Amino acid sequence: MSGFFSSDPDSDLALAHRMADAAREAILPYFRMDGLSADNKDAGKEGGGFDPVTIADRAAEEAMRAILAEHRPDDGIWGEEYGQKPGTSGRTWVLDPIDGTRGFLSGTPTWGVLIALSEGAGPVLGVIDQPYIGERFVGGGGRAEYTGPRGTHRLGTRDIGGLDKAILFTTFPEIGTPADRSAFEAVSKQVKLVRYGMDCYAYALLAAGQVDLVIEAGLNAYDIQAPIAVIEAAGGIVTDWEGNPVHQGGRALAAATKDLHAAALELLAGAA
Amino acid sequence: MSGFFSSDPDSDLALAHRMADAAREAILPYFRMDGLSADNKDAGKEGGGFDPVTIADRAAEEAMRAILAEHRPDDGIWGEEYGQKPGTSGRTWVLDPIDGTRGFLSGTPTWGVLIALSEGAGPVLGVIDQPYIGERFVGGGGRAEYTGPRGTHRLGTRDIGGLDKAILFTTFPEIGTPADRSAFEAVSKQVKLVRYGMDCYAYALLAAGQVDLVIEAGLNAYDIQAPIAVIEAAGGIVTDWEGNPVHQGGRALAAATKDLHAAALELLAGAA
Repeated sequence: MSGFFSSDPDSDLALAHRMADAAREAILPYFRMDGLSADNKDAGKEGGGFDPVTIADRAAEEAMRAILAEHRPDDGIWGEEYGQKPGTSGRTWVLDPIDGTRGFLSGTPTWGVLIALSEGAGPVLGVIDQPYIGERFVGGGGRAEYTGPRGTHRLGTRDIGGLDKAILFTTFPEIGTPADRSAFEAVSKQVKLVRYGMDCYAYALLAAGQVDLVIEAGLNAYDIQAPIAVIEAAGGIVTDWEGNPVHQGGRALAAATKDLHAAALELLAGAA
Repeated sequence: MSGFFSSDPDSDLALAHRMADAAREAILPYFRMDGLSADNKDAGKEGGGFDPVTIADRAAEEAMRAILAEHRPDDGIWGEEYGQKPGTSGRTWVLDPIDGTRGFLSGTPTWGVLIALSEGAGPVLGVIDQPYIGERFVGGGGRAEYTGPRGTHRLGTRDIGGLDKAILFTTFPEIGTPADRSAFEAVSKQVKLVRYGMDCYAYALLAAGQVDLVIEAGLNAYDIQAPIAVIEAAGGIVTDWEGNPVHQGGRALAAATKDLHAAALELLAGAA
């Protein structure tokens, strides 16, 4: 049943690449398509915002689930669009077919396909894929790698020094409670530069040594597990705002170094 | 002196492509380079922000100026990095070698090279180029065209309907006075979706029929002339917040349709 993809780290990685390839193929015909419509999952909810789900999201998750059904029938699946499928292996594939659907609908090239393999204590393998540019950021088993217009090279976080030198990414001011935002601002006032609106792409840039901090709130597990695996494999740290594991979602702090992580954590805690 | 690029619209377009090619070649080696440093042009100014200038900015503007020196010696030049060079032809090439330097320094793929040809009353030709993705958005002489991972196709703005259906891009909350921000918010509350932080790429997406409005403040002429030419050639409208020409810079409102432009203009005026 498991075909030629046996269940070892190298084979898991090969399977994750194959899933990401399938998601690319499913999504790209819909990107910047004229008249792409979006349902509103939050319609009717009190205070419900704009949460578009497109045909592309669903097609990509279906394509990835079909590959798992063939090659990993015993593993669980947790996907944004089709929910949880229990497994018997103790392993779960955590999928967000399009992270950054708002960006996708706006034609920006910074949404991504997120694939993680989780073993209970957290993700052991992660993929952040940007199909339009053709960039893939992969981490797991101690290896972190970029493939894209620049060819293939190792990913590693950088050490820029203190907070005053750091570049910070966030989805604020769009997301988070007022208290969350105050905590975020305690950090944002101390850094060199704040940038907005990159969704999962910000985590990829942190793993690639381009930026130093990402702070977000209101995350689901499938938003953060792939970034955790990629960033940790690249030498960085991802926790919640109390320094605890964040692979179940919530408020995330990702940092390039231990020192930056500690400094940002102190400011977030002091403001909360 | 003018070589094989004579001074007619088709030839101007060919020259603009050649300048954009030269800028790509000059810039790309520096994009995501380890340890890229940024001078701070605003250092020492009271309230000075972070305005990085990189080697890449300067190298790209030098490359474009060298082409103009050879093929358009009589035209004026107005570039972000090297200022104004008067001409005798009544035509001026308006250059921003890297629009979105902050995004460039952060590794995001949404900065761009801006090239415009201005004939006094405003730009008649514009190029927005994204070298890393390999995307180019060109407008002028009534033609608007995209070249990129999708091949080559016509650019045209879309007609989504009223403000409540519109996608709005902005650089706020980073830029603008508190009064500017209030005016912006009067519009942003009425639209379907607001996205942040795309610099010139937002204008390209408007020309490509992906988004409907861009509202910005604090612009220089070289930030807005290429977008004006591309968007107008694609069927859209770009003015200042009073409905007047904005090719000298200031506060810009770009809209996909006449109706959206009028609706946004009314809200901006009412809040000011």
